[in-house]
Amino acid sequence: MQPLPDFLARVQPPVTPALVIRRAAMEQNLAALQAACDAHGVRLRAHGKMHKCSMLGRRQVAAGAVGLCCQTVGEAEAFVAGGLSDVLVTAPVPPWGWARLAALVARARVGAVIDSTAQLAGAEQAARAAGVVFDLYVDIDPGMGRAGVAPEAAAGLAAAIARSAHLNYAGIQAYCGHHQHLPPGERAAAHAAWTGRLDALVAGLTAAGLAPPQVTGGGTGTAAMDLAAGLYTEIQAGSYALMDVEYGDLGDLPFLPALYLAASVVSANHASHVTCDAGHKALHPNGPPPRVVQPAGSQHRLMGDEHGAILPPGGAAEGDLVWLQPGHVDPTVALHDAFFVADEDGRLERWPIDARRVTG
Amino acid sequence: MQPLPDFLARVQPPVTPALVIRRAAMEQNLAALQAACDAHGVRLRAHGKMHKCSMLGRRQVAAGAVGLCCQTVGEAEAFVAGGLSDVLVTAPVPPWGWARLAALVARARVGAVIDSTAQLAGAEQAARAAGVVFDLYVDIDPGMGRAGVAPEAAAGLAAAIARSAHLNYAGIQAYCGHHQHLPPGERAAAHAAWTGRLDALVAGLTAAGLAPPQVTGGGTGTAAMDLAAGLYTEIQAGSYALMDVEYGDLGDLPFLPALYLAASVVSANHASHVTCDAGHKALHPNGPPPRVVQPAGSQHRLMGDEHGAILPPGGAAEGDLVWLQPGHVDPTVALHDAFFVADEDGRLERWPIDARRVTG
Repeated sequence: MQPLPDFLARVQPPVTPALVIRRAAMEQNLAALQAACDAHGVRLRAHGKMHKCSMLGRRQVAAGAVGLCCQTVGEAEAFVAGGLSDVLVTAPVPPWGWARLAALVARARVGAVIDSTAQLAGAEQAARAAGVVFDLYVDIDPGMGRAGVAPEAAAGLAAAIARSAHLNYAGIQAYCGHHQHLPPGERAAAHAAWTGRLDALVAGLTAAGLAPPQVTGGGTGTAAMDLAAGLYTEIQAGSYALMDVEYGDLGDLPFLPALYLAASVVSANHASHVTCDAGHKALHPNGPPPRVVQPAGSQHRLMGDEHGAILPPGGAAEGDLVWLQPGHVDPTVALHDAFFVADEDGRLERWPIDARRVTG
Repeated sequence: MQPLPDFLARVQPPVTPALVIRRAAMEQNLAALQAACDAHGVRLRAHGKMHKCSMLGRRQVAAGAVGLCCQTVGEAEAFVAGGLSDVLVTAPVPPWGWARLAALVARARVGAVIDSTAQLAGAEQAARAAGVVFDLYVDIDPGMGRAGVAPEAAAGLAAAIARSAHLNYAGIQAYCGHHQHLPPGERAAAHAAWTGRLDALVAGLTAAGLAPPQVTGGGTGTAAMDLAAGLYTEIQAGSYALMDVEYGDLGDLPFLPALYLAASVVSANHASHVTCDAGHKALHPNGPPPRVVQPAGSQHRLMGDEHGAILPPGGAAEGDLVWLQPGHVDPTVALHDAFFVADEDGRLERWPIDARRVTG
């Protein structure tokens, strides 16, 4: 790959603000994590909540991933419509969602997680009505308090799944979202403590005749530790494919920045700053601020829903492109309708962000 | 209108998270601002950046608005495609945008603002190439530093527009975004100071033979003051139609809350809180936090991209709907693909948020 400024100079998106994927960097990221998983005999189930893009998901599968995972019913529907044949919904499904997931099972392998008997009943009823069998995983709460059952409650749910003729006990899920962005030392310590608990949980389930066929979880921040610990059979990383400021700044991850936002300077009547067309609706403020990669050394400050200041202007004049790296990739991607995937020579291909709908 | 809890009890959106418009409240808001504008002989040009919804825009026009305004070229394209016949782009247009706007002029009245000679040249070239005449407004910076020229530079740009055969000098725009959310007393003082400057600007332009055909600007927070001051010929309010926590908490605006987010409780394994399916991708964090209207007295805390905590649970059980009022309407709407418009009896109509694309 050429130096970043040379690459950016060749890219001219047809509109702004525009999310641009550097294809060569993304392909290196896909290959790097796939190779690490392959070396440990662990499946990679790439997390589509990050990119919401079937074309990117199909690239991940072509590179060796077993399938995708996602957070919502709408994402699962879009991914199946977009040609993915194996999708796992990694967050508890709301009541309206089970019948819609059951309708997908005729077209793809579709799994889901549960953390309650009410969800189990919802899944079972929908599967029976549709005449299908769901893959269900027991979702374990590793201490985030967001979703999942405490480890000691896992066996009860697992046994209930295993008893149902309409459900397949596919294993357990344990995603440590609260570990992913810790500094390396803290992350290793938190991960080691969790690994001990997970080891005991798997042993307990196995002793109860409920050995989990899959232990799915892990993420971009902990993938290397998860693979080394040898407990997960499936890694759910998402951000590794494109990266962002938040993950890049950890400093220990073997993935390249592959996503940039191009914005146009649309007003330049001040010495202190120029105004570009990227505001709250193009750059989600969750996570650290975006990094201005061009003009180098400048900062981006949100100036409302559609605008941001580049300060100092750093030589950027009206009509120029400025380039930023998003702070937190997932919610920023959710604001856009397409990626522009750029080759090193600047050629662009448009990949729709087809799973970004949130109301089904 | 019935009490809010009775209304909410009748509404069952088909998916969650879902933006629900209370139709009766919205219609009252549309009528209230239209009546105020009519009473002053001032045009209402409703701001579509807030709702990004052609169906809502057409309701505003049916209620008396002269047309819509919007912030981006993509919004203008979607609104024209959605049947709006008079659209003004209220932010400086990036270089790639002029040819696309010119292509719209054959189908609708399309205006734009400029704050530089480069933009003037871009507009003129595109208009000439397409064989159309653009309505152009000089954008005035009332002190935000975001876009626009200083008042003393307005005459030069106005004269240049007026000289061009391909451009129509349609007036000036002055939008005081930084005044809209001030507490009532501060807002009145800031508005009075600005009104004095605007009065002098209009007088100076008039003396120079450049009397602005339209003075467009104003917003939900200042509309009543703008109308009373008598300088604006066109009000650009947007949020008035649906409102949000930020505007509602000002306490002096004659508009009703008309927008709610319905979320499902998807996990309930803790005494301290339940988890709902509304996180960063359904509720943009800009502005104040959302208000939980049901269960009353609880708070919403973001728990990641797809989840939020409702604490205390306030009786909400797994599978229940919880109801929130968004903190800042515009960027939250930009995360969704549709409104569900609810009658008082709970009947729902789906209105696509068809202008939410950001990459054209």
